[in-house]
Amino acid sequence: MIGRLHNLISILDLTRQDIDLILEHSAKMEQVAIKKSKDLEGKIMACLFFEPSTRTRLSFESAMFRLGGSVLGFADVAVSSAGGKGETLADTIRTVERYADVIVIRHNLDGSARVAAEFSKIPVINAGSGSEEHPTQALLDLYSIKKLKGKIDGISISLCGDLKYGRTVHSLGMALSHYDVTVKLVAPPPLRMKPAVIAEMKEAGLRVTEVDTLEEGLKDVDVVYMTRIQKERFPDVREYDALKGKFRLGLKEVGLMRDDAIILHPLPRVDEIDPEVDSTPQAKYFEQVHSGVVTRMAILKLILG
Amino acid sequence: MIGRLHNLISILDLTRQDIDLILEHSAKMEQVAIKKSKDLEGKIMACLFFEPSTRTRLSFESAMFRLGGSVLGFADVAVSSAGGKGETLADTIRTVERYADVIVIRHNLDGSARVAAEFSKIPVINAGSGSEEHPTQALLDLYSIKKLKGKIDGISISLCGDLKYGRTVHSLGMALSHYDVTVKLVAPPPLRMKPAVIAEMKEAGLRVTEVDTLEEGLKDVDVVYMTRIQKERFPDVREYDALKGKFRLGLKEVGLMRDDAIILHPLPRVDEIDPEVDSTPQAKYFEQVHSGVVTRMAILKLILG
Amino acid sequence: MIGRLHNLISILDLTRQDIDLILEHSAKMEQVAIKKSKDLEGKIMACLFFEPSTRTRLSFESAMFRLGGSVLGFADVAVSSAGGKGETLADTIRTVERYADVIVIRHNLDGSARVAAEFSKIPVINAGSGSEEHPTQALLDLYSIKKLKGKIDGISISLCGDLKYGRTVHSLGMALSHYDVTVKLVAPPPLRMKPAVIAEMKEAGLRVTEVDTLEEGLKDVDVVYMTRIQKERFPDVREYDALKGKFRLGLKEVGLMRDDAIILHPLPRVDEIDPEVDSTPQAKYFEQVHSGVVTRMAILKLILG
Repeated sequence: MIGRLHNLISILDLTRQDIDLILEHSAKMEQVAIKKSKDLEGKIMACLFFEPSTRTRLSFESAMFRLGGSVLGFADVAVSSAGGKGETLADTIRTVERYADVIVIRHNLDGSARVAAEFSKIPVINAGSGSEEHPTQALLDLYSIKKLKGKIDGISISLCGDLKYGRTVHSLGMALSHYDVTVKLVAPPPLRMKPAVIAEMKEAGLRVTEVDTLEEGLKDVDVVYMTRIQKERFPDVREYDALKGKFRLGLKEVGLMRDDAIILHPLPRVDEIDPEVDSTPQAKYFEQVHSGVVTRMAILKLILG
Repeated sequence: MIGRLHNLISILDLTRQDIDLILEHSAKMEQVAIKKSKDLEGKIMACLFFEPSTRTRLSFESAMFRLGGSVLGFADVAVSSAGGKGETLADTIRTVERYADVIVIRHNLDGSARVAAEFSKIPVINAGSGSEEHPTQALLDLYSIKKLKGKIDGISISLCGDLKYGRTVHSLGMALSHYDVTVKLVAPPPLRMKPAVIAEMKEAGLRVTEVDTLEEGLKDVDVVYMTRIQKERFPDVREYDALKGKFRLGLKEVGLMRDDAIILHPLPRVDEIDPEVDSTPQAKYFEQVHSGVVTRMAILKLILG
Repeated sequence: MIGRLHNLISILDLTRQDIDLILEHSAKMEQVAIKKSKDLEGKIMACLFFEPSTRTRLSFESAMFRLGGSVLGFADVAVSSAGGKGETLADTIRTVERYADVIVIRHNLDGSARVAAEFSKIPVINAGSGSEEHPTQALLDLYSIKKLKGKIDGISISLCGDLKYGRTVHSLGMALSHYDVTVKLVAPPPLRMKPAVIAEMKEAGLRVTEVDTLEEGLKDVDVVYMTRIQKERFPDVREYDALKGKFRLGLKEVGLMRDDAIILHPLPRVDEIDPEVDSTPQAKYFEQVHSGVVTRMAILKLILG
C-alpha cells in the first residue's frame, strides 16, 4: 500500500504503517459518521454476499451511506447467477466491476477474495472468506482496542473460544503481530489454535502463552476477546456439552477480570456471554459494532476518496 | 408523545391529538410526495423484516426515498444472523441501532416491536407484530377515511372478514376508539372479534353492533373495510369452503352499498373482492396504497425531522 | 413512441427511428456513466424480479444510481406478497405504481410485462419475460455492435447455440430486422429457430441462412453471438452430451474467425466459451456488460428525463 489503498484482501498485505493510517482515519470518521458527508457521492459499492451476514453487510452499507454513496448487490447467493446458473466467480467479478466502483465480497471458500481481486479492475474488499480471513473485522477490533484502551502497544489480550476455525481470531492474531502485545490463547483442547499459526505469531515477536480454562484467560489482561464455540465443530455432542459451560462468561467470571479490562466479541453471540454481563463496565462489544462503521468508512474513503 | 414522536409501537400509545397531528402531516406530504424533498438527506432507515412483506416494506422505502433518506436491512430472516446463527432480537437491535437512525421492524411474534424499542437507543416503528398490532396500517386507514370522506367523526364503518386474527382490524378498531364512530363487525361465526376487544371498543365509546352476513354489513355505512379470510384458520376445510362465497364482494353486493360509500382493504386480496368491483366508484383500496406512502412519510418526518 | 418513450415491452413496439434514438443516447451516456449525474434525482425505480437475475437487475440499478435515482423492489418472489399470499400480477402492479416512477419487471411467464404495462399508470420496462422477449438485452447487443464495429447496416452476424428457447436471440433477431443485415442461424437440430420466426425475419428483409455446425457459423461473419445450450432442454441427456462439445468455442475455433470479428454473449456462460478465449482480441462479452449499463441509462433517461 503506497500512497493509497487499493484492495483489502488479507491483514498480511498491510504494514504497520498501513494499519496505523487506517486507524487514524477511523478516528477522524467518528465525527463524519454523525454529521454524514457527500465525499463518496456518485460512487457505487457492490456487496456480493455468497454467504449470508447481517452485521458485516449492514455495517458496510451504513458506512457507504454515511459517505453519500450508493449500494447494490445480493445478500444471498440463491438470487444470483452464480447460484442458479453455475457462473464462475471470475465471470461474476468481471461483470460486477462494470456496475460499481468497489466490490465487497463474502464467500465461504478460502482464497475467494484473492481470486476476485485478481480478476477485478476495481478495488476488492474481503468481507470474510472461508475460515481464514476477515481483515476488516481485525481492523475494527484493533480500532476498538486503541479507542477504549488508548493504545495497542503494551497491552495484553486473551483470545478465547474457538481458535481453530474462527476466522476473526486468525485475522486479529495476524494484525496484532505488528504490535508489542502479550497474547493468551484460551481454548478447549479440541479448538486450540494450530501450532503453525502460533509459531508465526511467536516469530513475529508476540509473547504467546496457551491456557486451557477461561478462568486463567480472564486474569491479568487488558482485553478479553470472546468468540462463539460452534456445536457443529464437535464430532461428539457430549464433548460439546461438557465444554460449553466452561467457556461461558458470566458475572462471576467478570469478577476475575481487572476493573479496567474490556470484553470484545465479533458477534453474533449465542450463549457464551451471559446477558447479565452486558451492563458491566467491561462489556464493550456493542461499542465495537459502532467501531465497525467508522473503520469501514475509513477503508472506503481511503480506497475511493 | 410530547412535542415529537419517538417510537411508534402501538396505536394505544397515541392520544387523539397525536393521531390528528399525524393525519395533518400526512396531508401536507401529498405535495412533497410528488415534488420529493431532501428533508431526511443523510438519515438511514433500517428495515428489519423477519416476516416477508412487499407492501409495507416498499411503502416505507418509497416514503424514505421521497424524503431524501437511505435504506438498509433485510427482507427475509434467512439472510440475517437472527435466522442462521440464533441471535436474540435484543442483540440484533443493539447492533442495528449503530447502523441507522430509525428501525422499522416486522416480526411474527406479538410484543416483538415493544421489545425492540426497549433495547433500542434509536426510534423504532412497528411495521406489524404478531397478530395484534399494525399501527401504521391503522393510521393510513384513518388518513384514507379522512381524505376520502372528509372527516372521521360521525362516520359509520363495517369491519368485514377475519376479525379474530387480523392485526389490521385490531389496530384500526383501537384507532377508531378516539373518534365518534359507529362500527359494524361483520364476520362469520368462527372469525368473530374476541369479546374482550369488543368490550374495550364499547368502553371507549364506540357504538358497536355485530352482524353475521356480508349483506347486512354493506348496508347504511360510509366505509366498508374488507379483509382476507385465510383458509388456514379453519380446522375443517369444508367449513372454509362454505363460508368464503358468502364473504365475497362482487358487483351485486356493491349494489347494496350507499352510492357515496367507499371500500377499503389492507391488501393483498385473494378473492374476497371480485376484480369487477375495481372499476366501481366505491373501490378505493388502491388509493389507500398511496395513503400508505404519505402517512409513512409523515411518521418518518415527525420522528427524524 | 412519439417524442418520448413510455413503456418498453417488446422490440416489436419500436421503429428503426426509436432504436436509433436509443443507441444515440446510449453513446452520450458513456461520459455520464463515468462522471455520474443528478438527472434522475428524486426518481424511484421499482425492480420486480419474479425470476432471479444478477446481471440484469444490477445493471439497471447501476444505471439508475449513475443518474442519481433510487431503487426499491425485490430480487426474489419468495419475499413478496405475490409469492406467499397469492396476489395477482395486476394487483402487485397497481400497488407498486404508487411507490415508484418506473417499474422494471422480470417474470417467468410470456406476456407478463405486457400485462403489467396495461395495469400500470407509470412506465414499465420489460427486463425479460418468459422465453420470448428481453428487449433491453437486444438494445444493448445492437449498441455493442454499433460501438465495436462502427455500424449495424451491412454487417453479417451468426446467432449460435439455443435458438429455440433463448429469449435474447429472439429479441435480437427482431431488432436486427430493422437493419440491412446478413444472419446465419447456427444451432444443433433440436434447438433450431422456429420456422415461423425465420419466416418473419426473412419477410422483414434479413438475409437468413441456417447451418448445423459451429465451424460453419464462425466463418466470414463480423459478429459471433454465442448463447448457452441448457442441459434441461434435452429429453435425453446423451443427446446433450453428444452436442455440447460441438458448440464450444475454444482457441482453435476462434482461429476460424475473421481477425476483426467480435464475439458477444449475453452471459452468464457455463462452458460454451473456453476461458482461454477471454484474452483474444475478438472476445468482447465483458465490454458488452458495460454497454448494458449505458443502454439502460439511456432508456431510463428517455422514459423519466
